[in-house]
Amino acid sequence: MIKEGDKVLLYGEDGSKIIIRVEANKKKGTHLGHVDMNDIIGKKYGEQIVLGRKRRVFYLLKPTFIDLIFSMKRRTQIIYPKDASYILFKLDIKPGDRVIDTGVGSGAMCGAFARIVGKEGKVYGYERREDFYNLAKKNLKEWGLENFVELKLKDIANGFDETNVDALMLDVPDPYNYIQQCWSALKGGGKMGIICPTTNQVQEVLERLYEMPFIEVEVWENLMRRYKPVPERLRPFDRMVAHTTYLVFATKVNSKIGGVFDE
Amino acid sequence: MIKEGDKVLLYGEDGSKIIIRVEANKKKGTHLGHVDMNDIIGKKYGEQIVLGRKRRVFYLLKPTFIDLIFSMKRRTQIIYPKDASYILFKLDIKPGDRVIDTGVGSGAMCGAFARIVGKEGKVYGYERREDFYNLAKKNLKEWGLENFVELKLKDIANGFDETNVDALMLDVPDPYNYIQQCWSALKGGGKMGIICPTTNQVQEVLERLYEMPFIEVEVWENLMRRYKPVPERLRPFDRMVAHTTYLVFATKVNSKIGGVFDE
Amino acid sequence: MIKEGDKVLLYGEDGSKIIIRVEANKKKGTHLGHVDMNDIIGKKYGEQIVLGRKRRVFYLLKPTFIDLIFSMKRRTQIIYPKDASYILFKLDIKPGDRVIDTGVGSGAMCGAFARIVGKEGKVYGYERREDFYNLAKKNLKEWGLENFVELKLKDIANGFDETNVDALMLDVPDPYNYIQQCWSALKGGGKMGIICPTTNQVQEVLERLYEMPFIEVEVWENLMRRYKPVPERLRPFDRMVAHTTYLVFATKVNSKIGGVFDE
Amino acid sequence: MIKEGDKVLLYGEDGSKIIIRVEANKKKGTHLGHVDMNDIIGKKYGEQIVLGRKRRVFYLLKPTFIDLIFSMKRRTQIIYPKDASYILFKLDIKPGDRVIDTGVGSGAMCGAFARIVGKEGKVYGYERREDFYNLAKKNLKEWGLENFVELKLKDIANGFDETNVDALMLDVPDPYNYIQQCWSALKGGGKMGIICPTTNQVQEVLERLYEMPFIEVEVWENLMRRYKPVPERLRPFDRMVAHTTYLVFATKVNSKIGGVFDE
Repeated sequence: MIKEGDKVLLYGEDGSKIIIRVEANKKKGTHLGHVDMNDIIGKKYGEQIVLGRKRRVFYLLKPTFIDLIFSMKRRTQIIYPKDASYILFKLDIKPGDRVIDTGVGSGAMCGAFARIVGKEGKVYGYERREDFYNLAKKNLKEWGLENFVELKLKDIANGFDETNVDALMLDVPDPYNYIQQCWSALKGGGKMGIICPTTNQVQEVLERLYEMPFIEVEVWENLMRRYKPVPERLRPFDRMVAHTTYLVFATKVNSKIGGVFDE
Repeated sequence: MIKEGDKVLLYGEDGSKIIIRVEANKKKGTHLGHVDMNDIIGKKYGEQIVLGRKRRVFYLLKPTFIDLIFSMKRRTQIIYPKDASYILFKLDIKPGDRVIDTGVGSGAMCGAFARIVGKEGKVYGYERREDFYNLAKKNLKEWGLENFVELKLKDIANGFDETNVDALMLDVPDPYNYIQQCWSALKGGGKMGIICPTTNQVQEVLERLYEMPFIEVEVWENLMRRYKPVPERLRPFDRMVAHTTYLVFATKVNSKIGGVFDE
Repeated sequence: MIKEGDKVLLYGEDGSKIIIRVEANKKKGTHLGHVDMNDIIGKKYGEQIVLGRKRRVFYLLKPTFIDLIFSMKRRTQIIYPKDASYILFKLDIKPGDRVIDTGVGSGAMCGAFARIVGKEGKVYGYERREDFYNLAKKNLKEWGLENFVELKLKDIANGFDETNVDALMLDVPDPYNYIQQCWSALKGGGKMGIICPTTNQVQEVLERLYEMPFIEVEVWENLMRRYKPVPERLRPFDRMVAHTTYLVFATKVNSKIGGVFDE
Repeated sequence: MIKEGDKVLLYGEDGSKIIIRVEANKKKGTHLGHVDMNDIIGKKYGEQIVLGRKRRVFYLLKPTFIDLIFSMKRRTQIIYPKDASYILFKLDIKPGDRVIDTGVGSGAMCGAFARIVGKEGKVYGYERREDFYNLAKKNLKEWGLENFVELKLKDIANGFDETNVDALMLDVPDPYNYIQQCWSALKGGGKMGIICPTTNQVQEVLERLYEMPFIEVEVWENLMRRYKPVPERLRPFDRMVAHTTYLVFATKVNSKIGGVFDE
């Protein structure tokens, strides 16, 4: 039952998506007509509301986390669902895990980790820019995830406060400068994921990784292609996102014997 | 501290991976030499063991879920990490969710759901072949996830026992025959993901979806490309997995106005 | 030496491309300033002209065939260089070949064939719409290729006038309806290429191909990805063309033994 | 009519391909049975021969250039049809062109150029290794293209003998070391294509290109995906070639104003 204060995704009959917070006696103007929030209160998710004489329809949905991050306020490059989901899986994130995320940016990845690690785990979010720090704080509160994340306004050049974390995600412009700090924060066998939009960053990161006790070094990129869902003319959309970032993964070990041995 | 009964991933200096269950006074023969399990007990993850005169090295790692599904006994096509992770994210799986998975096959996707929904959620796994049912039971036990999954040896032609589930994954040879049963099991706004290896299956599934109250119908495919992690000669591997499956997603609504309106 | 009547590609210092036909005593207004064509006459390809006080630069280039087709008047979907070039190679087009192209559309593919088959070969272009026929005629003349192409305003339902052609390209909305006509026109061992934008068309075309004596049946798609040519931040462009068409190829044989035997 | 001395592609009913040179009174053993060449002489392309009691069938085809390069003797990495065809199109190769190809390797790209430039054009092939030089000579003769190619056993460090060539292809391990030599050989507005298997080579090549008067600098990669040609289960093959090379293109101009201006 939808009630005041809930976030609701209005999914229009034309495929449009609008996220609102339900407030009694308020109206929201949209391209399909005015939505009277009193009409929403008491309805269930999956039901519809019909607007005006033209009887335009909105379906009432609970926003998914993907809906939330695409509609959030942000000032940074968003992490794409295709990359966020693969990182969660490769870093083997599960309830109870302790995870470092840096830089936090708008907080989307912090939120993605937080939803899974839950109240028995913890996400430590490091961000050195105050505006991003405040934005992420706001976004995480908005998503109801603020209790699972400890945000820190802090430069990582001098390392992290935590040790023995299960996993760490590094998303900064110069990731090759923090490989040692990351190694120190991870537990033995802990997993690291690194965002590298350019091939040059991948090259430099790999060089640094091979200087430290890291194994299982992998580099991936992920091309998601979407199809027009028309059964009698099934074909991909004309254009697609061709590139977001390369993903570098590595596993910490305590010490390493000589030589690069990953294929 | 590694102890008897633990599963340990031996990660060889040559990139090889072997998963063992630690038993005192046992040995395991490998291509790098004999591993004496007594040498492992008491060590920590991230440490190494050194074998024989040639001093070949294995690192001791806790297997990730990806490691486990790639090493499990299976008789079915495996679901790839690239697809499994995207499904988890698109179906918005989180702790506490109730999820249906059918057909269960070797149990990998059941396990992936179970790890996240945790003890406050539940995975309902439907499988009609007894050999797969038994195999999945064994695999889930092996992974310590059997308490989060209720496995059922049952045909889904007559529908599911559950209603109001948060999400449902359909992975059977003829998915277009079960769209109505899936709709009935989902809650309003619930998410469905469908595995369709061929374009013909996608076409038939789309036709059925448009006959029912489903919205947000999307079709995706996911091309993961891996790079040789060599900093001075960075380039993709020569060959890659070109196709596993198309992924169809849809959201249940309670009723639908006329016409196909998804783009 | 550039002279009156030549087509010249003005390649701007900002990467812009403008194709002009040089006429004495004429000016062409552009976003970089006015181009006085008298300044171009007598210059060589590869030289530059400098415009006005701001000294903006255009390089003088001879337009390539790709430049020409991207700048031509057209009313149809263009064939992309990635697809056109692959078709030329798979159909094994060489000087002296006799080739059928249908439907002709704006004439780009006719032109691509004509440039290679040369004066000892011939391209037969079939088009049933008069507006396209006229447009193609105009474009081919524009490119100086009209003598190598015999354009026909004609429906192909009743077959082609030619037999024993070396190769044939079929680019119509319902290619599956003309497979027999194509077979009749080809020589033994002749090559056919078919444009199929949707998976449904591919499926229908394959069914028809297997009913006739065709072998070497292949289906391809071609994903070209372009990179930002910045050495210190090398990475793909953010977006790319995700789909133009599937390409189906087949080879005519005179008769066929039973069964589908292509892998 | 097939006669002695012709090269014939035997295309087996199982999709196998064998290229033979027809000689009277000779037999060729194959996995489908013994082929008596006397049975081939006098037949036409597109016809079939039937072998032995099991009545296995071979179709008689004229080998395409793709067939020839895949069956040639080679000691180098082959250039793939997807790349070769795109290079021909981007370099705007047409009858009468003068083209440099270096390094020649097995001669496949020389042959691809030669087939198009014809007897009014010329291909200049530079190769510094004698074994490759001899191999390419042999292959070109085999393909009947030796008269269109002038092969030179020569290092390109001191430049090329030709000037004002229409196009040039550079395929050596250290392409960044020869950019100036290439510039000198090209005519104004001439096109260059460079093979760069690694991102590091692309980066170095781009740096050198920007130091010289080159414009229209582009970097591409080409992903060809093949589908199983089964109409009722249409889907890509499971695996594909993920990478062969990056392709860098550039156009020579006579002099250049300051700064990198390609996007």
